[in-house]
Parts: sequence; structure tokens; C-alpha cells
Amino acid sequence: MGIWTGRDDKGGRDSAPTVADVGEHRLIDLITRPLASSPEVILGPGDDAAVLVSPPGWLLLTTDMLVEGVHFQAGYGTPVQLGYKALAVNVSDIAAMGGTPWAAVISVALPGSTPAEFVESLYLGLDRAARQFGVSLVGGDTVASPGSLVINVALAGKAAPGTVVTRRGARPGDLVFVTGSMGAAAAGLFVLQNPGSWPREAAGSVVRRFLEPVPHLEAGKLFASFGVGALDDNSDGLAREMHEICRASGVGCLIEPERLPVDAAVREIAAAAGRPWWEWALHGGEDYGLVVCVAPAAAESLVDACRSANIALTRVGLITVREEGLWTAWADGRTVPLLPGGFEHFLPDGGSHGR
Amino acid sequence: MGIWTGRDDKGGRDSAPTVADVGEHRLIDLITRPLASSPEVILGPGDDAAVLVSPPGWLLLTTDMLVEGVHFQAGYGTPVQLGYKALAVNVSDIAAMGGTPWAAVISVALPGSTPAEFVESLYLGLDRAARQFGVSLVGGDTVASPGSLVINVALAGKAAPGTVVTRRGARPGDLVFVTGSMGAAAAGLFVLQNPGSWPREAAGSVVRRFLEPVPHLEAGKLFASFGVGALDDNSDGLAREMHEICRASGVGCLIEPERLPVDAAVREIAAAAGRPWWEWALHGGEDYGLVVCVAPAAAESLVDACRSANIALTRVGLITVREEGLWTAWADGRTVPLLPGGFEHFLPDGGSHGR
Repeated sequence: MGIWTGRDDKGGRDSAPTVADVGEHRLIDLITRPLASSPEVILGPGDDAAVLVSPPGWLLLTTDMLVEGVHFQAGYGTPVQLGYKALAVNVSDIAAMGGTPWAAVISVALPGSTPAEFVESLYLGLDRAARQFGVSLVGGDTVASPGSLVINVALAGKAAPGTVVTRRGARPGDLVFVTGSMGAAAAGLFVLQNPGSWPREAAGSVVRRFLEPVPHLEAGKLFASFGVGALDDNSDGLAREMHEICRASGVGCLIEPERLPVDAAVREIAAAAGRPWWEWALHGGEDYGLVVCVAPAAAESLVDACRSANIALTRVGLITVREEGLWTAWADGRTVPLLPGGFEHFLPDGGSHGR
Repeated sequence: MGIWTGRDDKGGRDSAPTVADVGEHRLIDLITRPLASSPEVILGPGDDAAVLVSPPGWLLLTTDMLVEGVHFQAGYGTPVQLGYKALAVNVSDIAAMGGTPWAAVISVALPGSTPAEFVESLYLGLDRAARQFGVSLVGGDTVASPGSLVINVALAGKAAPGTVVTRRGARPGDLVFVTGSMGAAAAGLFVLQNPGSWPREAAGSVVRRFLEPVPHLEAGKLFASFGVGALDDNSDGLAREMHEICRASGVGCLIEPERLPVDAAVREIAAAAGRPWWEWALHGGEDYGLVVCVAPAAAESLVDACRSANIALTRVGLITVREEGLWTAWADGRTVPLLPGGFEHFLPDGGSHGR
């Protein structure tokens, strides 16, 4: 049925119990025992709704759906990694607001042939991410799927009133920074999609970046406390994120691709693949670092604060007026329009339709 | 691609734009303009996460995933009805806790061939339910699906501290009541699955009950204010709900199927189908009325309060000690074990596996 088969893919599956064998209600028993919780959780999984002590201040809500064959592929990783990533990408959305992730509900649509062990491993990964990022797993829904495996996470977060950062506040003259390094997730996906004799250590490194993305939660909170202008996470590629920010803020931008922070492993894979090293960083996405726009007067203290907090921060461009549009500027003096060109569902070639 | 084709199913589809034609980002523009909101919503759809003023007291969280081919079928209704139902079933979960629905995020996985108009209609239905039940639609995710259409709703609700009712508080001697009438949704599904010359008015009535279920929100709040013992919504059939309540509360029960409140339309379809009239009421599900267990001393005032509030309340059985097990009692003196027998995913015959 096109399902991940987990770590043990060598056979012996015939006798392993599937979700159809154990049934929905026993499956729910199986997966709701050991989940991450907190004293704020009055009632966890198993009833019609979870009950929590409402947090003071502001509440954030986000949701992301991962579909097999679109967001992940059979055999690209373990079910533990899949569960981890499903929650991590939602945590990244909360990080991109400067908030604190808090409580999640999980829905999973499973083909009947899915091994019960797969589902346990999936929840192990969800639980691992939940504990790492301080999220309580408070409930969910487990349903049958006639086709693909689908995982939906809805995550609530907390924030002090007035401290969240949207995409709307970029102003002409702001400097554009990114956190962490870029392009590794896209390079990892490329390696998975093109099996071959890639440099082994580099390939392992970028594949892990694709399968186990780490949201930049502490950086998001730091940026919110600084009152930066605009903040976004790099889920769809820097090019597309800049289009989102510029559109929401009514501004233009100038990005210098050769300034993008790219790990040696990405450069190594790019060289072996005969591709320009900056391409995955600019258009790849799924890195889940943050993109932040900040006024020049505040930039120096922000850079200092990031250095103190051990957060890698790199200046990659400038916000301009809307009429300027969106451009890339290159070391040799060329300027080239910045096409969105990130990952877009439904459109195989996201870069060609223009906006 | 096995997608609902909307109200216009007579052709002319070739030229209608699909979601693949318009692309994800324009689609999001299309569907996030007119959504239900409230002054508590600081930031609605379009950013990484929605931002709301956190409600005082307790917060409820629930989620339900609807999968085409499992929870709904092409041609069984309009996309407006599908959107309405996707939110209504979540509202019912909040009603079953005695809470007030508040804010929702929606994820939809769409085959690329889905008409863009279908998606607009789906959101129209979601929005209609949101306005009816006082829910703000604050965000979501729209992704591609290689197979079925999938809709996930995650709904947050509010409750005053200490007022929610779980499934855990049923005590031996409690009376079991249900709200509204039962079996209509299952009768409606039966009519849809078995096209034929059913009594026209009755068939229209039960089909609408299946396609547009109305959660019993006011009844839930009333029950919570009375401090009833246990509360559940009838999503999977009374038999299965009683198993859930008895399991969570550590009790048994005795249900009198011939007392179940069943509309004339259901009896009419049942007679035409040659089935016992109580069957859909006992095992059918999707009615989204409430099942409530209350101590005899409090029952009379509850009945009075429901009469004043125009809430139809019917006594259908009794809570017993766990050792008694779960039974049905019939007018002719027979007692028969109450098998769960509701709708269970993965297991085609949910009634045969015993628990």
C-alpha cells in the first residue's frame, strides 16, 4: 500500500500484525500510553477533547499536514524520524512567530496494511520531538486511509502579549539575516532521490538534516524580545520566504546569494552533482532556519545577542521599497530577478509561473 | 481522481480551473478572505501561526480527520455540506465535554484535479458552520494529495475551570439519557449506499441528517452546569459509546433499545428496508446527539431544565456495576449482550471482535 516499512525492511512482514489486525481502538491504547505531558494538562488523550489550563497572554495556533508521496517517501527514513519531523515543522511555525510551543493534537490516516509496529515508532518520534521542544501530546484521531499515509499535527503555542513577530513588519532599509546554515535539507532530498556514490560523510550529514530538521526556537524567542520587524521560517526556500515577507510587508528586497551560509557538506554534494552551491540554499527549503528583517540601528545589538546565545546569524540582504521589486545581487555585479522558485504543491515547476 | 465534483456534475468540467491550475498560493488567497472571526483573533490566516487572546479558564483541544472513501464518498453531498460536517463533528466533541467551541485550523489535502470551485465551496461550508457555532477560522494548511481528499479540523474550545464532563464519571445507579433522536444519520447513509425507490420525504430527511449533522452544543453546556457524571457524543453509535463510557468509568450498563428515540422517517426507511427500527439507533452512529449519565437524585431537575430549554431528552438505560457487564434489555423479557458494533476503522465488521 505504499507505506513506509520501517527499519526492518528485509522480510518477515507477513506475520507482523497490521493496524487492520489490531483495530482502531486497541491501536489508540497502544499509542497513548507514554506521551509527553505537563502539569497544565488536566485531561490528555482518550476522551472527546483534551483539557488544559489556558495559558496567560496570547495563544498561537498552527497546523501542518504531511502526505506520503508529497512530503515524504517510503524508504527515505525511519518512522521515528517521520514522527519527529511532523511535529518539528509545526514547532518551527511557532518559532517563526517568536512563541513557545505548548500542546499538540495528532491525526493519522493509515492504510490497513500498515504494520502496527510502524505506528508505535511514528508516535515514538512524535513523543521524542514533543519532549525535546516542551510540547504536550494531548490527543488525536486515528483513521483508515484507502491510499497514502497522512499525518496532521495541530500545535498550540504561547506568547507574552505584544511579543509575536509576523511577516508584515519589514521596512525599507532593514537588513535581512538568516539563522543556521542553508541548503542542507534540499541537498539531502537530492541525495535520497538520486542514489549514487555521493561522498559518504557529506551525504549522511545532509540526509539527516532533511529527515530530522531542528526548529530554531531559541532564536525565534530572542528575535521576538528584540522587537524585530519581520520573521519567517525557511520551510519553502529563502526565495519563496522573501516573496512572502515582501508581499505581506509591501516592500522589495535585494538578496546576495553568495553570502548564504552553506555547510561544507552541501558544497561537497553540489560539486559532485555539478550544481552551483548556492542553488539549494536559495530555492531548496525545509531547512527550518529563520529569516529575520531588522532595522540597521538594532542590528548590531542583535548580532551581539546572537553571538552570546551561540546562534549563527548571517546577513544575506536588504529590504528595499516595493517598487524596486525582488532581486538577487552577485559578486560580479549582475542583478537578477529573485523568482519565488521554492517548493509549491500542485505546481511541479514553482519557479516558472511568476507573481 | 475520485474527487467530489460539486453541484454541477453534468460536464463542462474540462475548462473549469483546477487547484493545479491556480496553484497553492493563489488558492490560499481564494479561501482565506471571508472567514468567520472574532475580536479575540489578533492575527488570522496567512502567517506562520494564528494569534489569539488566550481565553480565561480552561482550554479544550480536539481534532478529527475525514478521509474520502472512509468518512465520505464522492457524490453523497455537496462540498458545502462536506465542509459544514467537517467542522460540525469537531464542535460535537467540544459539546461532549460541555465546552464552548472557539477557534479552528483546517488542513486539506487535495488531488491536483480538484476543481478550484470545489475548494471554495468546501470553505463556504466550513465558514457556515463556524458562524453557526461561534468558531473563528484562524488558519490552516493546503497540500497536494496523490490519492484521496483529506480534511483535518483541529478545534480549540473554552470552558470555565471545573465544569467539563468526561466519560469517566458514570456511577452504578446512574440513569442513561440521550438527546435528540437517533438512527437518522445511519439511515441516511444506508439510503445513499443503496439507491432505490425509498419513501421520498423520509429519505430526504435522513440523508440530510447524515450530511448536515447538528452538534448538541446547548445541551452539553447545560449538562456541564448540572455536574452530570459522564458525557459523550454519539459519533460511533450508542452501543460503542456505552462501551467507551463503561470502560472509562469502570462500570456496566443495561440499555433498553426499544426506548431509543427514533423519528418516523427512520422507522419508515427501516420498514421499507426490512430492518428492525432500533438497529440504526443502537449501532449506527454519526447522529452527534449526546449520551449523558446522571445520578437518579439529579435526574428530575435535569429533565425539567431540558424541557425548559427545549432539549429533547430520553431515558434509555441504567448504569450497573462493572461485573454485570453491558447488556440490552427487551420488552419481551430477554437480555442480550450489548456488543460494541459501531463504526470502527480498519475492521469491516466492528461488532464481531468483542472486547
